Amino acid sequence: MEKQFIFEQVKEMWNNSIAFNSLLGFNITEMTEEHAEIKFNWQDKLMGNPVQKILHGGVTASVLDMVGGVVISANMISRIAKPDHKKIADKLSKLSTIDLRTDFLRPGKGETFIATARIIRHGSKVAVARMELHNEKGEHIAFGTGTYMV
Amino acid sequence: MEKQFIFEQVKEMWNNSIAFNSLLGFNITEMTEEHAEIKFNWQDKLMGNPVQKILHGGVTASVLDMVGGVVISANMISRIAKPDHKKIADKLSKLSTIDLRTDFLRPGKGETFIATARIIRHGSKVAVARMELHNEKGEHIAFGTGTYMV
Amino acid sequence: MEKQFIFEQVKEMWNNSIAFNSLLGFNITEMTEEHAEIKFNWQDKLMGNPVQKILHGGVTASVLDMVGGVVISANMISRIAKPDHKKIADKLSKLSTIDLRTDFLRPGKGETFIATARIIRHGSKVAVARMELHNEKGEHIAFGTGTYMV
Amino acid sequence: MEKQFIFEQVKEMWNNSIAFNSLLGFNITEMTEEHAEIKFNWQDKLMGNPVQKILHGGVTASVLDMVGGVVISANMISRIAKPDHKKIADKLSKLSTIDLRTDFLRPGKGETFIATARIIRHGSKVAVARMELHNEKGEHIAFGTGTYMV
Repeated sequence: MEKQFIFEQVKEMWNNSIAFNSLLGFNITEMTEEHAEIKFNWQDKLMGNPVQKILHGGVTASVLDMVGGVVISANMISRIAKPDHKKIADKLSKLSTIDLRTDFLRPGKGETFIATARIIRHGSKVAVARMELHNEKGEHIAFGTGTYMV
Repeated sequence: MEKQFIFEQVKEMWNNSIAFNSLLGFNITEMTEEHAEIKFNWQDKLMGNPVQKILHGGVTASVLDMVGGVVISANMISRIAKPDHKKIADKLSKLSTIDLRTDFLRPGKGETFIATARIIRHGSKVAVARMELHNEKGEHIAFGTGTYMV
Repeated sequence: MEKQFIFEQVKEMWNNSIAFNSLLGFNITEMTEEHAEIKFNWQDKLMGNPVQKILHGGVTASVLDMVGGVVISANMISRIAKPDHKKIADKLSKLSTIDLRTDFLRPGKGETFIATARIIRHGSKVAVARMELHNEKGEHIAFGTGTYMV
Repeated sequence: MEKQFIFEQVKEMWNNSIAFNSLLGFNITEMTEEHAEIKFNWQDKLMGNPVQKILHGGVTASVLDMVGGVVISANMISRIAKPDHKKIADKLSKLSTIDLRTDFLRPGKGETFIATARIIRHGSKVAVARMELHNEKGEHIAFGTGTYMV
């Protein structure tokens, strides 16, 4: 299988079948070995306080965790020799987040949010990604760093 | 107003009016100056992957962020001289998470989840809380540390 | 070899041969699979600013990193079947810190400092420890969390 | 006083009078409101283990904490209206690290090390900086994120 074709399939699967991502409206829009992107739109159910139209901090942490996991999954897949469905599923079943740090820079205001991730440590046991969250105006809302078991 | 009475009111308000907490089923069950607790039940929409009945990492981060904010809010309120509705609302509007670290220890399996927080640094500008997530069997699922602007 | 005997040997070796620990005066005083302790005394060279007798934040981070590594090393060693010098040296050469979070709670004032660590996640690839730093009066100076490759 | 002149003075003072930095050989080579740099050379006393010529993780954490503090200090100073020695000293005495995360990417091998910091959150109470450590070959050794009280 072609690498980019596999990424497309995984992207589709995750966009359609991870319950929590559907609930929050997360849509994976890019998945490569080095970079990933998730977009989502404002919805009132994402409000973190009773009065202000601001994202709940948990939404921010969730999307950063997810987008970091996407780039790391792509990286894991790209290292499989002669990938097939079984090998890919086996490999992905090993992915889990070890720890996640979220730095909140500005209130999460906006209509559309864009979370991006790039990989900063590849490894056979552990990988690390750095993530960012911006709104549609390019305002920088949060930073994240995630350490993942691979 | 009595301190504990105020805490009850804030608890009620937050349980009923924070959209994201309602969405996830979070229920604040304890709120004092030193300790807070949130309980929630398993629901399929909290699933983090397509095949296993395991909490999404973002749910874990969300509840840890929230329960840390609850104990810190109680602590902020308890420091107000002659508290009234306006003073309390003013004070709470200043609370925001600066950064959050989540350590995932075990897969988030369970029927009921209990998040707890205690305060480890009080201050006039910044406060820090440590949080834990357990399931109904007492299995320890995650640790968290949150730094909050107060 | 007896487990506790091995721990004593590793402790001795580290106390005498890690240059940076000698420089800072760190002394490993306890090493078991579940708990470790390092003590060190105030020295002017540990000062972090020109005027106040307060530990440099880097000293705090260093001792927390080290004491976490000690408990994790003991835990790694205790899992070796029929340990001998070669197996132990092989195993320890794999230990490295992946990430470290330090929470500074109070200024690092004191005559003697006690750093303690306990293990919170054991694993074949990754282990996590939580650490604390107190002074001789029992004042709590810092918290730490370290993720280690094992 | 000219801003850049003040930065030069603070740089000189810190390079000469912070005991722990002298001990480790840290030399502040750049200090502006947005960016800071510290250089230091390999010395055997910075070794973190008995056999390999690798930086102790505590050295890495120390220099990242320090370089983050430098950029944040410059930023604090640049916000003082009509700065004089007293105002600057008052302001700097309020600086303290709240929390520090260090991500270790590669073994700390090299002859010369370059730590850099840029500010990612300015504020009247809390500021956040991101830091990096490279060696003379440009290899990326570590990342850091520090939250500081200002």
